[in-house]
Amino acid sequence: MILDKGYGHGGDVYSRPVRLDFSANVNPFGTPEPVKAAVRAAAEELSAYPDPYCGPLREKLAASNSADRDEIICGNGAAELIYQFASALKPTKALLPVPSFADYESALAAAGCEPVFYPLRRANGFLLTEDILARIGPETDLLMLCSPNNPTGRSVPRGLLLAILDRCRQTGTWLFLDECFLEMTDPDKAFSLADRLQPGDRVFLLRAFTKAYGMAGLRLGYGICKERGLLESMSRRSQPWNVSGPAQAAGLAALDCADWPKKARALFRKEKHFLYEKLTALGCTVLPGDANFLFFTGAPGSYEKLLTRGVLIRDCANYRGLGPGDCRIAVRTRRENEELLKTMEEALRV
Amino acid sequence: MILDKGYGHGGDVYSRPVRLDFSANVNPFGTPEPVKAAVRAAAEELSAYPDPYCGPLREKLAASNSADRDEIICGNGAAELIYQFASALKPTKALLPVPSFADYESALAAAGCEPVFYPLRRANGFLLTEDILARIGPETDLLMLCSPNNPTGRSVPRGLLLAILDRCRQTGTWLFLDECFLEMTDPDKAFSLADRLQPGDRVFLLRAFTKAYGMAGLRLGYGICKERGLLESMSRRSQPWNVSGPAQAAGLAALDCADWPKKARALFRKEKHFLYEKLTALGCTVLPGDANFLFFTGAPGSYEKLLTRGVLIRDCANYRGLGPGDCRIAVRTRRENEELLKTMEEALRV
Repeated sequence: MILDKGYGHGGDVYSRPVRLDFSANVNPFGTPEPVKAAVRAAAEELSAYPDPYCGPLREKLAASNSADRDEIICGNGAAELIYQFASALKPTKALLPVPSFADYESALAAAGCEPVFYPLRRANGFLLTEDILARIGPETDLLMLCSPNNPTGRSVPRGLLLAILDRCRQTGTWLFLDECFLEMTDPDKAFSLADRLQPGDRVFLLRAFTKAYGMAGLRLGYGICKERGLLESMSRRSQPWNVSGPAQAAGLAALDCADWPKKARALFRKEKHFLYEKLTALGCTVLPGDANFLFFTGAPGSYEKLLTRGVLIRDCANYRGLGPGDCRIAVRTRRENEELLKTMEEALRV
Repeated sequence: MILDKGYGHGGDVYSRPVRLDFSANVNPFGTPEPVKAAVRAAAEELSAYPDPYCGPLREKLAASNSADRDEIICGNGAAELIYQFASALKPTKALLPVPSFADYESALAAAGCEPVFYPLRRANGFLLTEDILARIGPETDLLMLCSPNNPTGRSVPRGLLLAILDRCRQTGTWLFLDECFLEMTDPDKAFSLADRLQPGDRVFLLRAFTKAYGMAGLRLGYGICKERGLLESMSRRSQPWNVSGPAQAAGLAALDCADWPKKARALFRKEKHFLYEKLTALGCTVLPGDANFLFFTGAPGSYEKLLTRGVLIRDCANYRGLGPGDCRIAVRTRRENEELLKTMEEALRV
């Protein structure tokens, strides 16, 4: 919770009138019916404390991720796990490519760590490149990556990601890899480290149900990690009941709905192409995005002009390394995307 | 979440077969229907991120607590706020009467603070007494109190609580007062500091929906505090979306159900008397409890004997300052209480 100001994320449809929300990167098909049904059923069981072990959910997550139950930690949304991770690791030197999701920096700050920023270059489409390898040394406690990256939509190339893993193994550096958008990513770009992990690897993989299964309001995320000591330290930093009963029930139901994100991925591929063409025609510089959102640079003021017309996009000016005109939009259904484009055309005409 | 072991609380009906749970202190009438209905309705709105400001909920909480919205912070259950508070305050010297709720100590430990324990005396029925005042000095950063106290059920006497507040004002000591059981407490013993707070007071009042409204599975708690700086620091230590959409909706619905805990309080008064008499007749030493649970000392091994018969009570042997035979039971309906007593009689006969 935040008190009143300082919220710098998408999805704030609460402090202003919004008819179309393109600022939150969630599945445009919403929540699968079995997940809704699980929450309705859980409404009858609210009196009991939630399972502090998240037992059945972790069993099922372990099975679907070729991991042991012991290697899975669940959280009140993936976002909570970022704070728990930073607080448990308390790194002295953390390397953070920017722009990226703002809560990495916030979580490090809460843990007393001021990160070393590694600027991704606009001229290179904000792609992570091999020169990151030389920046990872034995003094680097932690490297935090997001792939595909938020807000740019760019994945870390597969070969580079494996080279980073190797380098981190050599230097003893922790690798925090946010894979929250993986299920919403084009299959040819979706590459997880989950089945590359070896015992002793200092790697934490972050996953969410939020985006792929339309569960942002419910809060459920998880992490995969082979270092039990870190998971124990993380769990000591939170109450035993941080994952609600409805969220655990919904997660179990969502794991039976693997087709849900698949259906959305087919839409994204088509709609990203459509939006790319149309936004470019409107004079925007659009990045090719691998996930369910697109990053573009347009005329400064676009965000405000759209908002006065009830359309909320993500103004990225407050991201470290970005500026006025930088925006992110979720990829939604054709009808909604057309509505966004129509509103943009109107706004630009004024 | 906890990994696999080390859970030392009530309500664990997950790792063993339990037909009757007396270990969790929740309203025996369960969840009010309007709260369930709010969660069912929220199941249709899971796709959107929850309101990071908890705006309408904080407005309503402020109105019902003679506070400003700015003085209210919401959490993923009251338990989360204990950790956030300790992490934000980072006290050097914290004074902690024991026995009390174990997560105060866990939260302080996570914040790097080893508290100074103030042992409540069994000979005095674990009542807090005036000699605590002399222990609060200018070097005391924090005093953590729970009233009625968990697991003893004893309230801090009204006059003493006001004297403690005065003393803390003089010494600049933070007073953390857990009022989570207040709505389940006999009206003549239920005394809140909420309407005694003055600007500048270093007091944090903790409240929960968990117990009074049967919402333990959903997670919703809040704090009242006049020091905005502390609330800001607490909020920086968590993600913006820690309070789920269903929990916010349920909280709003619960605030319209003030009769729900009232109905339960009438039951508690009658049933506490009944259980007190019957447990005493069974040879237990029972404390007069002010809230919805009773603390007693019986034959060591009672907990295990009841558990093999499917009845879970709270074994208090792992509380600091307590030992074998110390137990806590929730006060439930007459039918359930009779079932508990019957099972105890059977168990004692073996």
